[in-house]
Parts: sequence; structure tokens; C-alpha cells
Amino acid sequence: NEKLMLYKLQLSHRQDSANLLVFIALLTLTILTIWLFKHRRFRFLHETGLAMIYGLLVGVVLRYGIHVPRDINNMTLSCLVNASPATLLVNVSGKFYEYTLKGEISANEISEVQDNEMLRKVTFDPEVFFNILLPPIIFHAGYSLKRRHFFRNLGSILAYAFMGTVISCFVIGMIMYGCVMLMKEVGQLAGEFFFTDCLFFGAIVSATDPVTVLAIFNELQVDADLYALLFGESVLNDAVAIVLSSSIVAYQPAGDNSHTFEATAMLKSFGVFLGVFSGSFALGVATGIVTALISSDFTKLRDFPLLETALFFLMSWSTFLLAEACGFTGVVAVLFCGITQAHYTYNNLSPESQDRTKQLFELLNFLAENFIFSYMGLTLFSFQYHVFNPMFIIGAFLAVFLGRAANIYPLSLLLNFGRRNKIGSNFQHVMMFSGLRGAMTFALSIRDTATYARQMMFSTTLLIVFFTVWVCGGGTTQMLSCMRIRVGVDSDQDNSVSRGQHPSSKHLYSRWTFDSNPFSYLKPILTHSGPPLTATLPACCGPLARCLTSPQAYEVSFRLPSVGTLTYGDVTVSADASGARASRGLGPLCGVTSDEALDRELAFGEQELVIRGTRLVLPMDDSEGPLAPALPPPPSGLDLRRHRE
Amino acid sequence: NEKLMLYKLQLSHRQDSANLLVFIALLTLTILTIWLFKHRRFRFLHETGLAMIYGLLVGVVLRYGIHVPRDINNMTLSCLVNASPATLLVNVSGKFYEYTLKGEISANEISEVQDNEMLRKVTFDPEVFFNILLPPIIFHAGYSLKRRHFFRNLGSILAYAFMGTVISCFVIGMIMYGCVMLMKEVGQLAGEFFFTDCLFFGAIVSATDPVTVLAIFNELQVDADLYALLFGESVLNDAVAIVLSSSIVAYQPAGDNSHTFEATAMLKSFGVFLGVFSGSFALGVATGIVTALISSDFTKLRDFPLLETALFFLMSWSTFLLAEACGFTGVVAVLFCGITQAHYTYNNLSPESQDRTKQLFELLNFLAENFIFSYMGLTLFSFQYHVFNPMFIIGAFLAVFLGRAANIYPLSLLLNFGRRNKIGSNFQHVMMFSGLRGAMTFALSIRDTATYARQMMFSTTLLIVFFTVWVCGGGTTQMLSCMRIRVGVDSDQDNSVSRGQHPSSKHLYSRWTFDSNPFSYLKPILTHSGPPLTATLPACCGPLARCLTSPQAYEVSFRLPSVGTLTYGDVTVSADASGARASRGLGPLCGVTSDEALDRELAFGEQELVIRGTRLVLPMDDSEGPLAPALPPPPSGLDLRRHRE
Repeated sequence: NEKLMLYKLQLSHRQDSANLLVFIALLTLTILTIWLFKHRRFRFLHETGLAMIYGLLVGVVLRYGIHVPRDINNMTLSCLVNASPATLLVNVSGKFYEYTLKGEISANEISEVQDNEMLRKVTFDPEVFFNILLPPIIFHAGYSLKRRHFFRNLGSILAYAFMGTVISCFVIGMIMYGCVMLMKEVGQLAGEFFFTDCLFFGAIVSATDPVTVLAIFNELQVDADLYALLFGESVLNDAVAIVLSSSIVAYQPAGDNSHTFEATAMLKSFGVFLGVFSGSFALGVATGIVTALISSDFTKLRDFPLLETALFFLMSWSTFLLAEACGFTGVVAVLFCGITQAHYTYNNLSPESQDRTKQLFELLNFLAENFIFSYMGLTLFSFQYHVFNPMFIIGAFLAVFLGRAANIYPLSLLLNFGRRNKIGSNFQHVMMFSGLRGAMTFALSIRDTATYARQMMFSTTLLIVFFTVWVCGGGTTQMLSCMRIRVGVDSDQDNSVSRGQHPSSKHLYSRWTFDSNPFSYLKPILTHSGPPLTATLPACCGPLARCLTSPQAYEVSFRLPSVGTLTYGDVTVSADASGARASRGLGPLCGVTSDEALDRELAFGEQELVIRGTRLVLPMDDSEGPLAPALPPPPSGLDLRRHRE
Repeated sequence: NEKLMLYKLQLSHRQDSANLLVFIALLTLTILTIWLFKHRRFRFLHETGLAMIYGLLVGVVLRYGIHVPRDINNMTLSCLVNASPATLLVNVSGKFYEYTLKGEISANEISEVQDNEMLRKVTFDPEVFFNILLPPIIFHAGYSLKRRHFFRNLGSILAYAFMGTVISCFVIGMIMYGCVMLMKEVGQLAGEFFFTDCLFFGAIVSATDPVTVLAIFNELQVDADLYALLFGESVLNDAVAIVLSSSIVAYQPAGDNSHTFEATAMLKSFGVFLGVFSGSFALGVATGIVTALISSDFTKLRDFPLLETALFFLMSWSTFLLAEACGFTGVVAVLFCGITQAHYTYNNLSPESQDRTKQLFELLNFLAENFIFSYMGLTLFSFQYHVFNPMFIIGAFLAVFLGRAANIYPLSLLLNFGRRNKIGSNFQHVMMFSGLRGAMTFALSIRDTATYARQMMFSTTLLIVFFTVWVCGGGTTQMLSCMRIRVGVDSDQDNSVSRGQHPSSKHLYSRWTFDSNPFSYLKPILTHSGPPLTATLPACCGPLARCLTSPQAYEVSFRLPSVGTLTYGDVTVSADASGARASRGLGPLCGVTSDEALDRELAFGEQELVIRGTRLVLPMDDSEGPLAPALPPPPSGLDLRRHRE
């Protein structure tokens, strides 16, 4: 019996390996095809769209091509007990076997459970998406944010992400409720569908995906502000949507199954939203700052890039785990951790670690993303409880369209009152058109497919994702040319800031930003970019400031005026799927000052990055390679070596 | 009920997150301490030893410090059925819950299962080690092999790894059998202990760990041949030990429980060993070659480093899965895949991908290794079925010592008959002393702790690992100076080969190597290093050879005579934990020819690597950075740009 049991476990392990192999083969195929597309400069189908197509094909084959006979090892025994513990010990003729709870199965599933062994095998636990695949994607989104343009458009981005998503959620929820009511009248509804379900649907399809469109934007070098608006919105509204949907689930009126409106429950939901969001935000930012502190100059961790990278990876991962352990949302925490890491920690890392971390998360993001999209394709055929209801689907497409419109147009109108560079109507149309749905929408909808309402939502969501990725994603290039959006814009050209004159620190921090008072004092402490604290704090705090400022911050600050004749390149963390640096502009140095003080501050942080970036190019140690002596010294009087100490 | 159930699942998820967080915190702490040690140049305790100490401390705290009360959610229900299927459906008052089989539990465990919730929570499924943690470690070992010295000592390494491990296994097995017999006489044995168990113990403690000692060797730059011998032996004997142990388990005489010797069963075991080993070997090499082909010049994949890296990662992973799905040993396949990737694919990759893949696997290796070692420390207190038997432990330490001696000394004596540069007695003593036991031994011993014999083995193995890592690992520096081993040796200085004269290809391939006939024809096809096929194949095969040889191989071959005055650096894939390049010699170019033709071939392959390596240092594109125009052209007449095409 023991032997048989071992054999069974082995067999199941071998099958698992084979199933995982199917996905790896799928990914490999996708990569090879992407390469072919890139090679031939074929731009109409993005890699995610491609991954979905391959997934679909495999799904068809698994569903109709392969018939796995009923598995004798997997027989089902019914055993009557009066509770469902997490661990079950089963006594089989004197031997005890341990079973762990996997989940509830609806009664109508039971008959099917055994028939489609193969389809069941390639089905992942939905929690895999939230705990393994989404975190690297979301972290990468935060880490690869182009900070300067993001913070310049922060107000608008927050408006779109928070108000916009809530508006979209409620508009879609209302329309769907109307649709469901109509369906009930016509007799097309085979199960219960409450208003909270409609709102939940609104929340999950309000999460727009940054991947597909922005890859194209990046390649075409679309206007940086449009890019920042769309990217910032997509990234943040994922966070809003996930918290919003969990708050809606938490909405539970006093009478357990009444599903009617109740003010206290509504307030409670709102409280949950605020609590979870701010908790996740705080956690993410906190871990980012702790990492920045650990990797700052006070420790000399930067001499060991491997340790640094490992630490960076572990700290970012622990944000996720910490948030989950505290009952917050790990994905949201990871997003803000990524933004904080990009803003503070990145500047502290050694050049090698900067490359390593970027490349590592780029790779993880690439793999996770393509995996999710090919799984999405697969699910259309492998999922066994699809409910495709034509009326619901038509209603949903209409609602998604109207919801997006109700988000973008009114908010843009409002925002344009306050903005100096207005969001033009062509920008608005592009934003309207580019609201693709992707990984987050899918992950949220597959998380719970137990009820009839949820199954119908899942099927409809899949179709929405397919449509938006293929049609909207494929039509982006046409849309851009149709709307006469500038392409081929170097994102840094129009913002070149004088480095010739060091602006007075008062002026530098005069506007509210992420780094404004009191945050402005954080950056010089956490990194060694930015003006030293001695310049920004009042004179009375002199000794404290000197103690908290690293020698390098002094150096950078005091050396800057002499850099006068050096042209500079601007390195930004790349969001480009092909791994090439996204933008590396050559802004000629001009004596003119820009009026945007904020720009200066943010660009200033990046300048520091460039100075370090050059270390990668110039071999500076004698051990660096045989060619080193043949190289001339750096062109300016800057002694880059002193940076390393 | 459904709500409660969801809540239970959520709670269990939160606990899992918290437990994983403990390990992440442990790793973070380890990294910070390692950094401190490296910073202070403290060399007596390696990071793995440190990780174990931290693990021990956490184990003590969990065991004696935290008392988690009996968990009400985890109650155990006994339910009598007559089989143990992989999936169990439990009918709880009309609702069906799905349970999955976790494993058998021995009767005496049942009483304890509930008491130590916390300890149970931090216990991983042993298969995690084999399927998640070991593969990156082993792959990295293969990928970071210093190929030149490895292949030069291949014969000796194979002898130590195959014959040595088998000798060690049987010697230890015999001694332990004697010890067990004695214990039975004295009445110290509380359960069954068969001869096969003894042999199994011999197999698992014969796997030596390459990590700790070699990190020190690397840092001190110990003699390259000694390094190659020890590293090669440690890496390969892991593979031998894992297959050997599974063959011993497969040894089953006709009468199921007789455990006596039987010739046919022995033969069957031997067949299993050969089949599994050669199958895994073939699979690993095959995947490596396929990857090399895909990333070769015929496809222009190297223009997209991200795709290339992703492909490399997926192919290497699929080796593991494929081997497991076929019933071979994934870890062994991954080892040979790594060696093949380093030998063939690495040369095809773009410089960026070379760095990326190295760094990626370095990071994975670092994390996995430290995780295993800290888990090892933890297990000493968290594992609940330890059987510490003083007699068995003393016997085991003696047996391990004698087993290692019976491996090294007689084999060295034999090998010295055939070797030109003899393995000196001081080398032999160091090899004897450096036989640390580590991750593989641990993973093999924790895989099955169901019986009394296995539990006793596991406890003893833990102690052996602790002792060897702390004492032998810590004493390596002393041992080296005591044995008067040369340190600070540049591994390439004594092997500098003339590139001024291109040796005749006949002479080049005159000795049997990995790349000897017919393998020699493989390398020019799979990579574009090495002499073109047109030079190595007979004249009649001219057209075929021209067709199979990439234009770059021609270029390299025909250009070499002109490189005459260029000094060269030798880059090897780094095995250094700190991420720095392991060895980068500056061999001055001399006109003298070395007598080792093999050296030339291997160095030749690495020369190609260097030429490409310089591309990292020299900015060659206009987009590369603002400083590019200021740099002089490369010192030699080589047009490096043409490499890229």
C-alpha cells in the first residue's frame, strides 16, 4: 500500500511536470514568434495578443483533441463529516493519510470533475495569479515609471486613477444592473445577480492594463505627457480596482442575503477601502524607504552588487508578504514599493545593481505577463463553467465603453481648468481608445467563479480582454496617426534644464511635490542626490544637517557649477519590452532656465544617475581590462573615481 | 458556512505569508551579516555557515519561545474509507469540499500533529527542495564551471565522481552496517535498520558540496588544477549520489520485505542507475544543444537580449521538467544542461545576455543556497521526529571520514600513474579535508523521514553537515597554509597560449576531449567560435562544411593571425558569491607555444568571448552615450562592429 501510494504521488508529480511543460513550450513558441515579428518589424499584434492566440490554440487542442480516460487513481469518495477542517486525516485500513483542503466544489461540478482530467490538470489555482504572477508585473510597472513626467502630471493621474475608476465602476455597475433587470424580465437570467455583483463587475473591468499600448508608445516615442498620463493612470487604477473590488465584496448589509442598499454597510465598505488602500500604501512606501536606508552610503553595501541585488529583491518581496500577512493588499503595496524604490533606492545602488535589478524585474515581468496572457487564451476553452449570455455581453461592451467615456471626458474637462498645458481632445480620444483590459481584470475575475453571476462575469470579461487587446491594441498605431499625435518625440528634449546655474534651494522646492516639504528632507538623507540638507534646512539646524548628509551629496552639489560645458544624457528606467534603454536623449546644454522648478529637481536626481551611469562605460580600475590604459581620461574635470571612494 | 470557509482559507493564506516572511527576514539578516563580514574581511565563517546559525536561533525561538495554542480550525476528523485517492471529495452537510492528498502520516505522529502548529507551519514539503531550490543551485554549478581546467582534468574528475562516490557509498554502507549490527547487540536499536538503509545512508552522505570551500578557494585564488578537481568532483558527485540513492531504493529483492542480497535485484538496480543517469545526461545535453542552435547566428535572436535571456531561462527550466516528466532525474539533467549551455550556448549569446544569464543564475543560486542552509539550521529544532543515537552518530562520523579517505587516496594513487602533472599529497590532503556535505545531502535525507531508520539518518546527516560546514569550512584557510598550497595564483598565467600562430587543426584536436571527434564538429556548427569546419573536415566535405559554418567563424579564424600584438584578458563565468569577476588575467602575449594543444582550443573559445566582452566597455554606437565620440577607436585593427552585423 505504501509503495502504491508513493507511486501515485510520483505519477502525479510527473503529470504536473508535463503540464507545466506545456506552458513553457507555449512561452517558448511565443518568444520565438515575437522575435520573428520584431525582426520583420510587424507591429499590429503585440506579444500579449500573440500569447493569447497560442493559448487559444492549445486550449482547442486540449478540449477537442485529447481525451484522457477516467483516471482510476483519482476516484472520488464521499465521506460524511460535519465540518470542513483545513487538514483532514483519513484512516484507510489502519494507515493515516493527510489531506489538505483545496476548496469547495459546487454540486453540478462533481459529475464533471472526473471526465475532463486533462482540462482540470492545466487549470491553476487562481491565487497563483495574485501571489506569484501579478506581483512582479505590478512591481515592474512601478519601478519603470518615468518619474519626471509622472510627478509633473501627478494631479491629473491621481484624478483619473481614483475618481475616474470610481466613476467608471459605478457607471458600469448601473448599466449592468439595468441590463440584468432587463434580462430578468425577458427570462434570460438563470440565476441570481445582485446589485453588488454588478458593482463588482464594474470594479474589475475598470482596471486598465498598461502593457500593450505602452509598449507601442515606447517604440514610437509618443509625446511624453500623454505617455505619463496613460501609464500613470493604468498603473494606479489597477491598485484602485483591486481594493475597490474587495471593498464591494466586504459590503454586506445586516440581513445576510438581502443585498439591498444600506448606509452603514456602505460606510463600512468605504472604510475598508480607505483602510486597505492607505495601509498598503504606507507599507509599500515604508519598505522602500527602509531599503533605501540600508543601501545608502552609510553602509558600503554597494561594493557587493550580488548582495545588494539580493537584498533589493528580498525587501521588495517581503513588502508583498508583509502586506498579505497584515490583511492589506500585497499587490498594491508592491506597486508603491516599486515607485519608492525607483525614486529613492535606485539612486543608491551601484551601477551594476541598477542594471541587475532592472533586468531581473524586466525578465520576471516579461515571463509573468506572457504566461498570464497565454493562460487567458487557454481558459476560453479549458474553463468548464462558461456562461456566455449574448445580452449580458452586449450590455457589458456598451457599459465598458460608456464607463471609460464617463471617466476620461468629464475629468479632462475639469482638469483642463487647472492645467497649464491642456489635455487636448486628441489626447482624450487616445486615452479613451487605449483603455485595454488585461492581467489584473483577468486575475480579479478568475479569483472566484463559484456562483452563476461570477461565471457569467468571467466569460464576459475574457471576451472584453480579447477584444480590447486585439482590436484596440492592434489599432493603436492607426489611432495615433489618425489623431495626429506627435511621434518620435524625445521625451527629454523639450524639458532640458540648465545645469549651469545651481538654482537656489528655496526656489527648487517651492512647489508641492512628492518631495516637497517635509519629504524634500527625505531624499538627501536617503540618497546622495539632491542638494545637501545643509542647503535646505534653516541655519540653526546646521550641525544636524551636516551629520545626516553624506559626503557625496556635498560633492555633487558643490561640483555641479563646474560641469558647465558637459553635455548630458538622461537615463530612465526602461519600460521597453525589448530590453533596450527606453530613451536616452542628448540635450545640449543651454544657459536658459526652465520655469518649472519641479522639473529641475527631478532632472537633478537623474543627473546624478547619469554621472554614475558613465562609470559603466568608462573602465576606471586597472583590473577592468587590458584596454583601459589606452582610454583617455574623462573629458571634463570631474574625477569620477572619487565617487566610488 | 461558505463565508467561514473563505475566512479559513484567507487566514491560512495570511499565516503562510507570515511564515514565508520569517524566512525572508532570515535571509535579509544573513545578507546584512555577510556584507559586514566581507567588509571586515572576516573569512572564518562562510555565508552558508552563517545562514545555518541564524536558522538555528530562529528554530530555538520557535520551539521554546512561541507557543501557539491548539488550532480549532485544524481539527482532525477520522473518516474510514478503503482507499487513498489523490483527490477526496468530502460531503459536509450537502456541500462538497475538495481535498488533495499530502502524504501518509505515521500513527505516532498523529498525537503530535496538532500540538506544535507553529513548527508544522514552518516545515516545507521536502519536494520543494528538489523541484524549486536545488535546480538553480545545480544549474549554476554547471554554468559557472571553469571549462578549461575542468576539461583538462576530466579523466580524474570522472574517476573521483563515479568510482569515488561508489567506493565511498559502499565503504560507508559497510561500516554503518557493522555499527548497526553492534547497536542491535547492545540493544540500542529501537527499530528496523536494513542493509539497504545503510547503503542509502552511504549514498546520501557521499555527495560533497561545492559551495563553501570553493568560495574561499576563489577568493584566495588557489591553484587552478586543485580548484578544478574539487569543483568538478563536487558537482558531478551530486549527480551520482542522487541517482545512486534512487537506485538503492529501487533495489527490491523478490520477497518484498526480506532485504537480503539477491543478484537479479542488484542487476536491476544497476540497470536503473545506468538508465536514469544516461537518460538525464542525454536530455540535459540535448536541451543545451537545442538552445545553442536556436540562439546561434542563423537566427538573429541576439538583437533582443530580453527575448534571448527569457528563452535561455525557459529552455533550461524545461530540461528539468522534461526529465521529471520522463521519469529521469531533473537535477542531473539540469547539471549537464548547464555545462552544455556554458560550453556552446554562452558563446552565441549577446554580451548583454551573457551578463544577464550569469547574474540571474548567480542570484537564484545565492538565494536558494542561503535558504536551504538557514532551513537546515531551523530543522534541527523544528523537526519533531529526531532520533539522536550517540553510537550511530559516532559510527557515522567515522564512516564518513573513512569513506572519503577510501575515495581520495587510492584513486589518486591510481590516477597519478596516468597523469603528467601528478596530484601531490598535499592536494590529496586538501581534497580529503574539503569534502563538505551540504544542500544535496540535506535534500536527499529530508525527502523521506517516515521510518525509524530514515529519521535516525536525517538527524545524523544534519550533524554531519553542521560539523563539516563549520569546522572543515572554517578551517580551510588554515589547512591551505598548513599544506603549503600556492595561493594568489592567477589561473591563466601559467597557461598562456600563443595566439600569434594558428596551430594546425589536426594537432589542435589530437587528444580526446569533450570536443574531440565527432564532437569537434559540433562546436563550429553550434557556435561561431573554434576553427571553421572547412579547416577540420576532409576536403571532400568542403561544400557541406561551407554551408554549415557561419560567416563569423570564418572571420574569427582568418583574422586571428593579425591580432598578434593585442594583449588579452580571459573572462570566465564567475562562481564568486560577491558577483565580481572571478579571474581576469592579463597574460602578456609571447611567441612561445604551449605544449598542451587542448589548452589552446579551450582558450581559443574564450578568446572569442573576450573580443565580445570588450564591446561592453567600449561604447560603439552613437546612441550609447554622450561620451562616445571622445573615445579613441579600439587599439587594434579589429573592427569589432562587424561582429554585430
